[in-house]
Amino acid sequence: MSYRFQKLYEEKVFKDPVHRYIHVRDQVIWDLIGTKEFQRLRRIKQLGTTYLTFHGAEHSRFTHSLGVYEIIRRMVDDVFSGRPEWNDDDRLLALCAGLLHDVGHGPFSHTFEKIFNLDHEELTREIIEGSTEINEILRKVGDDFPKKVSEVIEKTSVNKLVTSMISSQIDADRMDYLLRDAYYTGVSYGNFDMERILRIMRPRPDGVVIKQSGMHAVEHYLISRFQMYWQVYFHPVSRSAEAILQKILQRAKYLHETGYHFNYVPVHFGHLFEGKVDLDEYIKLDESVLLYYFQVWKEESDQILSDLCQRFLNRKLFQYVDFDTQKHTEKFAELKELFLEIEIDPEYYLVIDTISDEAYDYFRYGEEGGKKPILLLQTNGDLKEISRKSELVDGITGKKLFDSKLYFPHDLIYNNPDEKKKKVIEMIEEIAGAKRR
Amino acid sequence: MSYRFQKLYEEKVFKDPVHRYIHVRDQVIWDLIGTKEFQRLRRIKQLGTTYLTFHGAEHSRFTHSLGVYEIIRRMVDDVFSGRPEWNDDDRLLALCAGLLHDVGHGPFSHTFEKIFNLDHEELTREIIEGSTEINEILRKVGDDFPKKVSEVIEKTSVNKLVTSMISSQIDADRMDYLLRDAYYTGVSYGNFDMERILRIMRPRPDGVVIKQSGMHAVEHYLISRFQMYWQVYFHPVSRSAEAILQKILQRAKYLHETGYHFNYVPVHFGHLFEGKVDLDEYIKLDESVLLYYFQVWKEESDQILSDLCQRFLNRKLFQYVDFDTQKHTEKFAELKELFLEIEIDPEYYLVIDTISDEAYDYFRYGEEGGKKPILLLQTNGDLKEISRKSELVDGITGKKLFDSKLYFPHDLIYNNPDEKKKKVIEMIEEIAGAKRR
Amino acid sequence: MSYRFQKLYEEKVFKDPVHRYIHVRDQVIWDLIGTKEFQRLRRIKQLGTTYLTFHGAEHSRFTHSLGVYEIIRRMVDDVFSGRPEWNDDDRLLALCAGLLHDVGHGPFSHTFEKIFNLDHEELTREIIEGSTEINEILRKVGDDFPKKVSEVIEKTSVNKLVTSMISSQIDADRMDYLLRDAYYTGVSYGNFDMERILRIMRPRPDGVVIKQSGMHAVEHYLISRFQMYWQVYFHPVSRSAEAILQKILQRAKYLHETGYHFNYVPVHFGHLFEGKVDLDEYIKLDESVLLYYFQVWKEESDQILSDLCQRFLNRKLFQYVDFDTQKHTEKFAELKELFLEIEIDPEYYLVIDTISDEAYDYFRYGEEGGKKPILLLQTNGDLKEISRKSELVDGITGKKLFDSKLYFPHDLIYNNPDEKKKKVIEMIEEIAGAKRR
Amino acid sequence: MSYRFQKLYEEKVFKDPVHRYIHVRDQVIWDLIGTKEFQRLRRIKQLGTTYLTFHGAEHSRFTHSLGVYEIIRRMVDDVFSGRPEWNDDDRLLALCAGLLHDVGHGPFSHTFEKIFNLDHEELTREIIEGSTEINEILRKVGDDFPKKVSEVIEKTSVNKLVTSMISSQIDADRMDYLLRDAYYTGVSYGNFDMERILRIMRPRPDGVVIKQSGMHAVEHYLISRFQMYWQVYFHPVSRSAEAILQKILQRAKYLHETGYHFNYVPVHFGHLFEGKVDLDEYIKLDESVLLYYFQVWKEESDQILSDLCQRFLNRKLFQYVDFDTQKHTEKFAELKELFLEIEIDPEYYLVIDTISDEAYDYFRYGEEGGKKPILLLQTNGDLKEISRKSELVDGITGKKLFDSKLYFPHDLIYNNPDEKKKKVIEMIEEIAGAKRR
Repeated sequence: MSYRFQKLYEEKVFKDPVHRYIHVRDQVIWDLIGTKEFQRLRRIKQLGTTYLTFHGAEHSRFTHSLGVYEIIRRMVDDVFSGRPEWNDDDRLLALCAGLLHDVGHGPFSHTFEKIFNLDHEELTREIIEGSTEINEILRKVGDDFPKKVSEVIEKTSVNKLVTSMISSQIDADRMDYLLRDAYYTGVSYGNFDMERILRIMRPRPDGVVIKQSGMHAVEHYLISRFQMYWQVYFHPVSRSAEAILQKILQRAKYLHETGYHFNYVPVHFGHLFEGKVDLDEYIKLDESVLLYYFQVWKEESDQILSDLCQRFLNRKLFQYVDFDTQKHTEKFAELKELFLEIEIDPEYYLVIDTISDEAYDYFRYGEEGGKKPILLLQTNGDLKEISRKSELVDGITGKKLFDSKLYFPHDLIYNNPDEKKKKVIEMIEEIAGAKRR
Repeated sequence: MSYRFQKLYEEKVFKDPVHRYIHVRDQVIWDLIGTKEFQRLRRIKQLGTTYLTFHGAEHSRFTHSLGVYEIIRRMVDDVFSGRPEWNDDDRLLALCAGLLHDVGHGPFSHTFEKIFNLDHEELTREIIEGSTEINEILRKVGDDFPKKVSEVIEKTSVNKLVTSMISSQIDADRMDYLLRDAYYTGVSYGNFDMERILRIMRPRPDGVVIKQSGMHAVEHYLISRFQMYWQVYFHPVSRSAEAILQKILQRAKYLHETGYHFNYVPVHFGHLFEGKVDLDEYIKLDESVLLYYFQVWKEESDQILSDLCQRFLNRKLFQYVDFDTQKHTEKFAELKELFLEIEIDPEYYLVIDTISDEAYDYFRYGEEGGKKPILLLQTNGDLKEISRKSELVDGITGKKLFDSKLYFPHDLIYNNPDEKKKKVIEMIEEIAGAKRR
Repeated sequence: MSYRFQKLYEEKVFKDPVHRYIHVRDQVIWDLIGTKEFQRLRRIKQLGTTYLTFHGAEHSRFTHSLGVYEIIRRMVDDVFSGRPEWNDDDRLLALCAGLLHDVGHGPFSHTFEKIFNLDHEELTREIIEGSTEINEILRKVGDDFPKKVSEVIEKTSVNKLVTSMISSQIDADRMDYLLRDAYYTGVSYGNFDMERILRIMRPRPDGVVIKQSGMHAVEHYLISRFQMYWQVYFHPVSRSAEAILQKILQRAKYLHETGYHFNYVPVHFGHLFEGKVDLDEYIKLDESVLLYYFQVWKEESDQILSDLCQRFLNRKLFQYVDFDTQKHTEKFAELKELFLEIEIDPEYYLVIDTISDEAYDYFRYGEEGGKKPILLLQTNGDLKEISRKSELVDGITGKKLFDSKLYFPHDLIYNNPDEKKKKVIEMIEEIAGAKRR
Repeated sequence: MSYRFQKLYEEKVFKDPVHRYIHVRDQVIWDLIGTKEFQRLRRIKQLGTTYLTFHGAEHSRFTHSLGVYEIIRRMVDDVFSGRPEWNDDDRLLALCAGLLHDVGHGPFSHTFEKIFNLDHEELTREIIEGSTEINEILRKVGDDFPKKVSEVIEKTSVNKLVTSMISSQIDADRMDYLLRDAYYTGVSYGNFDMERILRIMRPRPDGVVIKQSGMHAVEHYLISRFQMYWQVYFHPVSRSAEAILQKILQRAKYLHETGYHFNYVPVHFGHLFEGKVDLDEYIKLDESVLLYYFQVWKEESDQILSDLCQRFLNRKLFQYVDFDTQKHTEKFAELKELFLEIEIDPEYYLVIDTISDEAYDYFRYGEEGGKKPILLLQTNGDLKEISRKSELVDGITGKKLFDSKLYFPHDLIYNNPDEKKKKVIEMIEEIAGAKRR
């Protein structure tokens, strides 16, 4: 039998706390899970630095990727299969794209990508199409199969339906991460009725639509998402840890560029410091390697690198105050000066972190450049955009998510402050106070 | 106010998926959590290699330690406080011992301890009494306070009541790990009614006893424990990963001893290879460091070390068959010979793993050397051992937990076997078949 | 010791699926639970006819009343106790008012009250202040204690703080019913983090306020409430059952008034048919008595009464279409005529049911007659209305809940319709179609 | 299309708190649910008097019956369908038998059956085969179909496989009631992993067997069952309520037989008082009718009937002490005499209730008359009885469930006792004391 349709002799079942069980019947999926590129996701946390705020959130991208696969599998096998709008030839494509959609993520990915100017979607494509174990398996399905999979993930595929299953405003990726992140952090916000949503999804050529009868379940999902953003993803303490992480990598890169002699040469960063990516090197980079370097850099003679590393490892994070990016430009400049006077380098110890509003306008409707809306399938076959039917969605459509904070090392400034430090404190209080409503 | 009684200005609350919230009011506890020795527990998994079987089980000893602390806190503040048998002076001792009971654990601790001949209880004592941040804080409570805490953890304390809260047959440690491991693996077995058990615990000079009215909740706890052992803790696949881990460390040690030239000198193992422990070095050793070494050793020229490391990282585990330690001694010797003939070193590729029965006879009663039984407090004040009152506990008392498996690299033997390998296969099948009932 | 402060020898614990345990320590509370007026609540369902839509929702007002008591108890004993703004003399008042707030409810209460022109709050007052077992117990606490309790329930008490604990926009009553109704129906919407909300409630002279840090938990609660209204409380199928119930009682009253000779004289309705309430009679009326009458009325010779009763008992409910109260006045008049022509009495078989918007504008803010807003306590002590701080609450503030449906007996009209019935069908389709968006 | 295979135009979905959703696709099932005989189960509680101990347990046999149907449906459609050992012609038979297995239950069934010498299995047969709405529907499937369904329920069917799905040691009936009763009472004991068990069930001609790999899930189920018996089903307080119930019915029957003139003639008991059953009358008898009679009998002049009814309605239950049926025969006779002396009729106020051991030896193995064991399917196809493989099951096999209690009206005896009553108290204490271990 062709490899594409090959089934395992016995179904493999993974116990999963979120979906109870994850079922694997296809040889291709089983083989993909066994690749070193996929197993590497076990060493990359799903939520980056969030575990320093919510200690339970230590789960990896590996578990999330299995979860996305399982949701896609249930969509296809339990709901879409047999419907005229669904072509079962797309089944394996959807499963593979779901499983592999995050395979290009690096350690603490958002920060890492930022400093080294990487793009995890681009890297995902390279891992799928490049010389890897994953590619070898996908090619056994068909010569153009790796490309097809990566196009779905990159949202350039002509197959809009399969694409929408993995990336749209209500897709397998988001549904898994909301449920999973809620489960591991322990917050109750992310808990919507996925089983219901799956049952009322219907395949259409342009993407998945939702039966009108399930509108309330979708409302619940959207509100969950909204609340998870504020409660978990944008939590100011996790952002403090991210700020430190970013400054560690920035310092290490700077030291490398300026010829600093490392005790432990960071060979694993390979060509990243030069702005180049080598796929083999990249795949070896995971969070245990990063944490190892933080351990050894903690012993380096460079005070800034050493201090930042011990802060991250021992969770001595920066403190924060609200910051108004428009009002406080001048004050920030002054504060930088004051930092220099007390001999704390503001480049590394004074960080503005701003949360953009993108996360939320995803269901704003009909605007130029707006994302594709969630469509409700009426009993007469019409499609209606959800905010026209739901008072609740209408109420939150267009609301902006925005938050800006100023991070600084409270301990270095507030402990037994001299006159100069007192001035710094005064300025910080002023910024904080001005923002207080 | 004395440091011992100092309260935080505002209670700190940690969101916890198992206990919902963990409450910290005491300055001492807050300070202990902030030490580098305690934060290090974030980088040591609670269940070692179990995440390679149950992918959700990626939680750390950090979360478990907070959980044990919280259970102790509830015992003391919600149940014992105000009862004549409870001395509130012991409150902080109990809280600290609960929080710190696992602080000496190393990376993948059981295997690690075995290879390097370590004892995590001894190391816990050293971390508490040695020159550490933890010790500094505890000493501020009282000069003899560190010693008191470590004595409780080592079960040598004269305070039997506090000791029993942390280590007995139904203690805060076990209650937390059963609930937590069940939560993170996703199995339903470990889910007993802890709230009920806490409410019916009563302090007595020799240890905590349980009111008769709560017997069924305790039964449930004991059965949960029994089932978790078979289902999770003794899972043959996790033991396969442990076998490989053990062989990696054994090989690295051997190579070090025989003067092998490592590309990446394993400096972080410090004096461990010489059988000595340096506390500072030990504290720096965590699972990210180990995983880092596995990454670099994967590239070493020593084939055995390299192969074992890639097996662990990419989850290419050993296969297993049931093994009868008594019947198969000879066959095992023959099998070793056959392995040599096919040039697979049996020292590293043929592993017998035997699960001892200790885990289970913990509530066997009255026997020489038997552990202290669980006592039920009757309405008339008498104490009765639980197996005398409970048919269910009586039914399982004395049952032996025992399992022995033979691990081997299936891929190296079964893929396109030549004549010699076929002989190996035959022998393995013989061993497997003989055990089949 | 005075009865007010008398404690049970041993705390009584009720297993509760929503709050896990309900704890009773006070003799007064224990005695109140044992009264016949309180035990009667076991025979009145919390959600009336909802069990005909959500089959799991068979829980009684008894369980809800215990739940409200328990929430009040936790507020007082775990959160308010010891705070300067809380007077522990009010403890028993709050507990009793919480426990007894629903004690005046009749069977299928809203419908029942409507037909017989009753007011359950008035009846609650009479049960508390009249000659009942409950009154006897409360008077043992103090002569004016019954009056104090009923004033809190009627919201005429000078004690605004205690009143707000039981009836405000975020009170023990609402928190219990949302959680409980979600649990028993099985929907996931009502599941907010009550434990968190309790912890951040603070007593103030004018009512309970909420710490700013818990805003997201309150958002979650408000959204839960919003969703439970649409999903459960306003479900059109339950309203169909309610319409039939109403028509049964209306018909029985009419028959009584017009001198119809009942086979089973409805003596238990006592003076209700004459518009008078006798407290003793009222207390004997519960849902088992009503259901008994429906059983015997099913055998009555009056066709309308008999048919409606079998519809209710055997769940042969009315069908419905959306109805526009403004547009369809004329059509409705015509439809009534058509009903008469096919010899179906529109007085009993054609029902418009309109859901008012009251349920939702409860957190509209600052308007004339608007209810008291939810106030957030800032770190500096200021109070801010929640919709000014929360984008989410702001988004739904002022949204109207409104729904109107037309109910009719589908079976009598659509099965083998003759020409006249076809006209009725046409008219119904017209009404339905006109509303379709 | 033949009625047997007719599908609903759209699947109907019931929200269920235990199984999340119950799915109905078959017209036959939908029609059966709509019959008056099935709807009647809404007015019969699943756990009889248990709600007087666990207030949450107010759920009806209606919800349980739907649950059993759903489990059978999942077995058939998700697990058995397509396997050679399963004949899909049996699908509808299994679904109908599952749905209808409890349809003959009377109000508070066990007590009711005992007093009136009824057999609910016999009554179930009559309802299925007699002149009922249910029978009418089943006959449309086939003339012999009603008989086939009732034979499965009565365990006289030649179809052993389908029979075992509904009644065996691990069947849909037990699985639903354990999960459901645990959910509604709120106890945690009954919570096993049904999804897992379903997945590993395999059809065999003689009944369902279980794959060896799922042994631990079955262990968990058996232990759950064991604990639910002790914790819920045999709870002494529920048995007190049952004792009163029994005595009410016994007294009413006695009064009827001795020509007592009832104020409200209990016509609804019809011929039951004469030991005859009329199916039409029986179907009208439900718990609301019984509770109605208790309300009116409370007002009867017969003191015993009146007192017992108010006890049941107002939950003034009997107290109890342990009773040794062998040791205390004489004491019991004496106690009866003493009761007569204090003018309390021991026939109604002194009740011995003994719990037999049947519930538990269900998995005793191989003994004469022993029930069919649970069989585990080995990988080589062999079947092994579970207690031979499981230490846990072996440990509890053969354990006896046995409990005997003496019930009496504490209030009538202990409140201000005179000399004679003191003697009664003495005797009760003696019996109680003798049993104390």
